[in-house]
This record gives sequence, structure tokens and C-alpha cells, in this order.
Amino acid sequence: MSTFASQESATKISAGESISSESIAESGATASEDVAQYAMRLGDDALILSQRLGWWIARAPELEEDIALSNIALDLIGHARFLLTYAGTAWNKSEDDLAYFRPEEEFRSCRLVEQENGDFGQTIARQLIFSMYQYELYKALAESSDPTLAAIADKAVKEVEYHVDHASQWILRLGLGTEESRRRIAAGLEYMWPYVEELFTDDELIDRLDGVAVRPSSLEEAAMRGIRSVLAEAELEVPEVAQARLTSEVRDGSYSEHRGYILAEMQSLARQHPGATW
Amino acid sequence: MSTFASQESATKISAGESISSESIAESGATASEDVAQYAMRLGDDALILSQRLGWWIARAPELEEDIALSNIALDLIGHARFLLTYAGTAWNKSEDDLAYFRPEEEFRSCRLVEQENGDFGQTIARQLIFSMYQYELYKALAESSDPTLAAIADKAVKEVEYHVDHASQWILRLGLGTEESRRRIAAGLEYMWPYVEELFTDDELIDRLDGVAVRPSSLEEAAMRGIRSVLAEAELEVPEVAQARLTSEVRDGSYSEHRGYILAEMQSLARQHPGATW
Repeated sequence: MSTFASQESATKISAGESISSESIAESGATASEDVAQYAMRLGDDALILSQRLGWWIARAPELEEDIALSNIALDLIGHARFLLTYAGTAWNKSEDDLAYFRPEEEFRSCRLVEQENGDFGQTIARQLIFSMYQYELYKALAESSDPTLAAIADKAVKEVEYHVDHASQWILRLGLGTEESRRRIAAGLEYMWPYVEELFTDDELIDRLDGVAVRPSSLEEAAMRGIRSVLAEAELEVPEVAQARLTSEVRDGSYSEHRGYILAEMQSLARQHPGATW
Repeated sequence: MSTFASQESATKISAGESISSESIAESGATASEDVAQYAMRLGDDALILSQRLGWWIARAPELEEDIALSNIALDLIGHARFLLTYAGTAWNKSEDDLAYFRPEEEFRSCRLVEQENGDFGQTIARQLIFSMYQYELYKALAESSDPTLAAIADKAVKEVEYHVDHASQWILRLGLGTEESRRRIAAGLEYMWPYVEELFTDDELIDRLDGVAVRPSSLEEAAMRGIRSVLAEAELEVPEVAQARLTSEVRDGSYSEHRGYILAEMQSLARQHPGATW
């Protein structure tokens, strides 16, 4: 960690206070193996999506949008740092260990966040679906019996609320815009739609973490209501496409072919010089 | 411009107040041709460097550094928006017109900001040189007789002060780190050094804007003192390499071979759909 880190001095975690990955590391809270696996799922989703969105810096269709997407990417990296720092307490690993030195098959991101950016419409389609899911997730997780997860969610939900608003505004603008913008956002939604179901699928880890983790299936109704409402306002259809099959346990081996490329880009510098002072 | 723009309501520009590219556009201030050319030089430097730094998102050696470099890129896009909005008032053009629809030969960026990122050390070398120059520039420009330029500089200088600090901390860490980190930062400095002189070269436009523009040659002493002092503390030598020759007037045709690639990436989406609602 560099010397110009944000100087937050919180020594324990409680909701509403400022939070940083340093304060989580120093809080003495230690995640159990199951809690760490759960935190890693959420952290990996945030990390992978931030890498996808980061691609747009310098490529967005407006300077203002360059800034907006980059800010969303930065929020997500921030959440990933919290979650991976907390997960790492179970194995005495740092956020950077988990981000840069884990092999592809040990990541736990969902397939939606790994999907290709495509054109701007495709990226915005992913943003609408994922932000709406993540907003409901963090809103519920803020009530977790695990105080560290609750504090992270409490901070993150306020930022994700903005991400939902950002995506919704764009869906309206594209859906009600030109024939071309409408065609593109509809195609983007269709491309991303097969990966919706995975977001709301429970598994045994979730069963074991009752009261700590949020049950994904419990989020589906509210998140889908939100998505459908934005699409209706934008006069866009809810896609009718088959869901992509999970070839194994949820979030365990059934990842997309894109993950390797994303990680290759993200991890290459850190891996060229493991343990280097940068 | 999208509907989720920051809602700032300033109707005229004065130093110390909040400033936005909307407030500049609505202030009624109109740049003369010379002032617009000058604002475009500064805006293009900030814009091109932000594109270069944006590449690091998802590729930095630490998650924390990902965030730091991205934040610097965002600051620079912000400054570019102000400066290009003001320049555009001379020709009834928007910031996006100037960023996305100007051909390569009409950009006015200096060659330093166009240089390749290379490894992390090379990027940090560019950051030290450019931030130190830009800090002195904006500090002086905050006293400009042009109130819009003065207000932009007054806001930007506070952010650039952080950029100087960020680069300085890294120079120390790399210079005093391992043999390898020291070798790399020294190589980075040598790579960037030929483009230093251009930053401090006056020309006729500057002569015509006495009291409005800052004379580049007047910044050399303070900026170089700052750079030398950081290098000395990091036990690094000031490179002794020849300056790259300017093949024509300063900031007019003597640009690097990299500019075209940077612009191709930045402009391609906006140009595919000129006038599109995104």
C-alpha cells in the first residue's frame, strides 16, 4: 500500500461510519471460511464489473459520460477492496493477493459481469440489470448479522443507488431516442438477458449462512419489478430468450469464457513483478 | 448532455465558486480567437493525458493505485471539459465537438502527454514532469486578467497539487526501492526527458496574450526546481539526454506519432454515430 492512502482512522467497523479497506483489515474482524467465500462472490462481481467499465474511460460517447462510467467503476473497485479485504482475513491474504494472484477458476464472479462490453447499449443493458440486483442485495445485506458485511453494504448501497439511476436514465434516453439507439439497447438487453437467472439462484453456501448472507432468490421480485418498470417506461420489451445453462454448481466453475481475458489484463503487471515495491 | 448532469446553477464565473462546464457555457463569457487557442492548448494537454492515464484502470499494480490513477484521470477530464467549453465559445462549438470531431492536426497538445505509458515507472516519470509544470502553470493562471481562465485555474490547481504529491511519493518509492524499480524509474525519466523543453517554450500567441496567458518560460525555474528536488531526494540523476527537436512552430504540427492512435480510440464511438442521442 502506498503512503498517500486515504487517512481514515476507524479502528472498528460499524454502519454509518467511514469505512476503508485499511479499517477493515485493522478491525480485528475475521471472516469464517463460509463468510469469506460469500464476501469473495460479491467482491469478485464488483471487481470484474469495474474492469469492464474501466474500458470505457477514453471511449465513451461524451466527455461527461466518460466521467460518469469511470466514477461508477471507481465505486465498484472501492466495494471490491472492502469485500476482498474482509474475505482475506480468513486466509491471511490481502486484497491485492486475492485480486492479482488468484487463478481464473478460483474467482467467483457471476457470468453477467463478465459479458463483453459490446457497444454502449450493451454495456448499459448490463448496468441496468446488475445495478438493480446489487441495489436490492446491498439494501438487504445492510441488515446482516455480520457487522462488517452490514457496514460495507450500508456504504455501498448509497453509491449503487446512483448507478441504478444512471442506467435508468440511459435506458430511457436510448429506448425513446432514435430508431438506431432503440435497436441497439434492445439488442443489448437480449445479449445480457440469459445471465439474469444466475443472479437469483440459491445454493448450499447461502443455506449455511442464514442471517448473514442475503438469499439471492429473495431479491428477484423487487429487482425484476424495478427492471421491468424502467423498460416499460422506455417502451422496451422484456426479452424472451432462454437462460444460459449453469454447467455446474452456481458460481463454481460455471464461469464465462471471458473471465480469462479480463484477468490476464488485470493481473499481468502485478504478476510480472510479484512482491515488487510497486 | 445527459439528464443526470451535476446540477450546478452558477450563472457567472468567479474564482472560489463551484464551477462546471455548464456554468462556463451559460456564463455568457466569450473567448477571443487567441484566448480560445490558448485554452485549447491547455485543455488538449489535460484531455490527452487523461486518456493515457485511463488506460491504467484495471491494469495498475495495486487496487489502491488503480483508484488513484483513475481519480487523476478524472480530474484531468474535468479540467479539459472546462477549458474546451471555454475555447468553444469562440466558435460556437461544444466541448464534445472539440474533443471528438477535431482532426489530429488541429489538436494542440504537447508531445510529453502523448508519449506512451510504457511500464508503470515510465508513466510516473511523465506524471512528475507534467504535474510539476501544470501546478506552476495553474498557480500563475489563477491571477490571469481573464476571469474564466482564472476561475478554472483556481479550481484545477488544488487538484494538481495532489497529482504532484502522488507522483513525488511514487518517485521516492521507486527510486529508493529495489534495484529493479530504480532501474525502471530511471529509464522512464530518460524516455520522457526529451519532451521537457517544449513545456517552457514561448511563441507569438503567448506574446499577444500578455496578462491573460502565462508565459511558459516563466514557469521553468520553479517547475524544474521542484522536479530536481524530488529526484535528489529519491537519489535519482537528472537525465542528460538531448531535447527532441520541434520540427515547426511550438504546438503547431510538431506533434508526436502517438497522437493519431490516442484520438482513434477516443473518437471512434462518437464518430460512428455523429449527432446520435448518445
